[in-house]
Amino acid sequence: MKAVVLEKELQMQTTRPEPTLEPRSALVRPTLVGICKTDLELVKGYMGFQGVLGHEFVGVVEECDSPEWVGRRVVGEINCSPRDRVVEDPRHQPERTVLGIVGRDGVMAERFLLPVENLLEVPPHLDDEKAVFTEPLAAAFQIAEPLPELPPTALVMGDGKLGALCALALQDLGCQVTLLGKHPAKLELLKGKVKTHLLSTPLQTSFPLVVEATGSNSGLEQALSLVQPRGTVVLKTTVASPYQINLAPAVINEIRILGSRCGRFAPALEAMACGRVDPSFLIEKVYPLEEALAAFEHAARPGARKVLLRIS
Amino acid sequence: MKAVVLEKELQMQTTRPEPTLEPRSALVRPTLVGICKTDLELVKGYMGFQGVLGHEFVGVVEECDSPEWVGRRVVGEINCSPRDRVVEDPRHQPERTVLGIVGRDGVMAERFLLPVENLLEVPPHLDDEKAVFTEPLAAAFQIAEPLPELPPTALVMGDGKLGALCALALQDLGCQVTLLGKHPAKLELLKGKVKTHLLSTPLQTSFPLVVEATGSNSGLEQALSLVQPRGTVVLKTTVASPYQINLAPAVINEIRILGSRCGRFAPALEAMACGRVDPSFLIEKVYPLEEALAAFEHAARPGARKVLLRIS
Repeated sequence: MKAVVLEKELQMQTTRPEPTLEPRSALVRPTLVGICKTDLELVKGYMGFQGVLGHEFVGVVEECDSPEWVGRRVVGEINCSPRDRVVEDPRHQPERTVLGIVGRDGVMAERFLLPVENLLEVPPHLDDEKAVFTEPLAAAFQIAEPLPELPPTALVMGDGKLGALCALALQDLGCQVTLLGKHPAKLELLKGKVKTHLLSTPLQTSFPLVVEATGSNSGLEQALSLVQPRGTVVLKTTVASPYQINLAPAVINEIRILGSRCGRFAPALEAMACGRVDPSFLIEKVYPLEEALAAFEHAARPGARKVLLRIS
Repeated sequence: MKAVVLEKELQMQTTRPEPTLEPRSALVRPTLVGICKTDLELVKGYMGFQGVLGHEFVGVVEECDSPEWVGRRVVGEINCSPRDRVVEDPRHQPERTVLGIVGRDGVMAERFLLPVENLLEVPPHLDDEKAVFTEPLAAAFQIAEPLPELPPTALVMGDGKLGALCALALQDLGCQVTLLGKHPAKLELLKGKVKTHLLSTPLQTSFPLVVEATGSNSGLEQALSLVQPRGTVVLKTTVASPYQINLAPAVINEIRILGSRCGRFAPALEAMACGRVDPSFLIEKVYPLEEALAAFEHAARPGARKVLLRIS
């Protein structure tokens, strides 16, 4: 089968063996998959991953132990229970595998395997171009999970895809959001969807909640200067290398810094299915699977919006 | 009066004018005061403070608008309401003054002023050598304040005074504590008081709660390696300058990092008054006020335990 494979370097393979059905698993034929910043980091060597890339997908179940799943259109949680047992929430299970990231081939291929308990059916009226955002939107909704209560206002730092999704998710949860960005063109794209603020103009206020989604290693220090004393900074940016930071303000102002990663799919899928959140305006281009290398190059361009691969 | 004053450099003054009583204030004659790491940082220029140093004290009220306070032995909260109004919790009020730290003369003098609402009476059977620890012990008890619940076990990193107080406070709150340190002599001092572990031997387990009280800029990164996924790191160390750190594990493992500073005095005072916590074993030497410069030099020695000034 065709597959986008990371083996020392990124490559398009055409004769990769198809996976064969395993117990408790579904064999999925993906139809639309997303290229994520994590994929670009993996290509640079992050996590040392080798294998088929990709973890954002919509697809159709082709084979499955549980016959009721066959033929259904699905998305799927990316953290998988260890092979010998099912755990309730594998997101922090040390022996977990992660679709296209840790110890398990990903979705950028004609077929892939996923444990059946990871599947969620996509409602018929929700099209692929929205459903493919379930994983990153779930990560955005995850912001609220560890908070005892959501404050009335929040600042989201970062006008990239992650920042936009975080702002949409928080807004959907009832929070009055300001999105802070430095690219006028990107802020323009968000017009009418979320209140934006250009970084070059100083903000006149501080916020009880600041979401750091800049992707930059200067973001956290800036977040600490924009959050109220005893406020919360949610750290979404993963900077894989060490960087310089002054954390004294976090101690002096007793800030809560919350690392935040994957979220549960169900609330994100529901928000899109009900029409409350529509992230499809973030799509920049859809490439066929065969042009995956060009698509990866496109996705890596500074300021690129979402680049997808169509698999037919 | 005699006073330990920071004016460009640390100095012993003998003809400093006595403060005069202000409305809503008490004029306090301190009897025993502590030299704190913050005092040593102020001497190095931290916060740009100028004036009488010191914020850890036990003393006797000499004059007060509220006559019931006169003659009482007291300790006092260090964060003071703005001069024009009383706020309920001034610890994060932007216009607050802080005793001997921000905009207000401190306690290393024969007399000082403190708002009457900051005072707490010391129970008669609690001697000065314990009561003088109320402020740092309150900061240790503060660890628990923002936590929804205290986990059954915790690791305290740091075998200095702050680490020891944090361990005693958490233990008093019912937590099973391990204190991690690198100085065998300091750990020896804690024998019988708290379970200790020498840093050179790897720890076989991770903890739901890790308190970073090493005073070192490598502490947080190490704390992130010792805390369980979704666990909490309480950051007590204030490193005034920027430093290199890799925060990716905080995002990946969804760690909660809580900056933690001053605490309320009442629980700390009560824990000592009931005999549940006795930090007086941390006292290394008591100097007379007149020898304050020598006392500061002593307090700055690596590994020094608590150095106090007696004011008579």
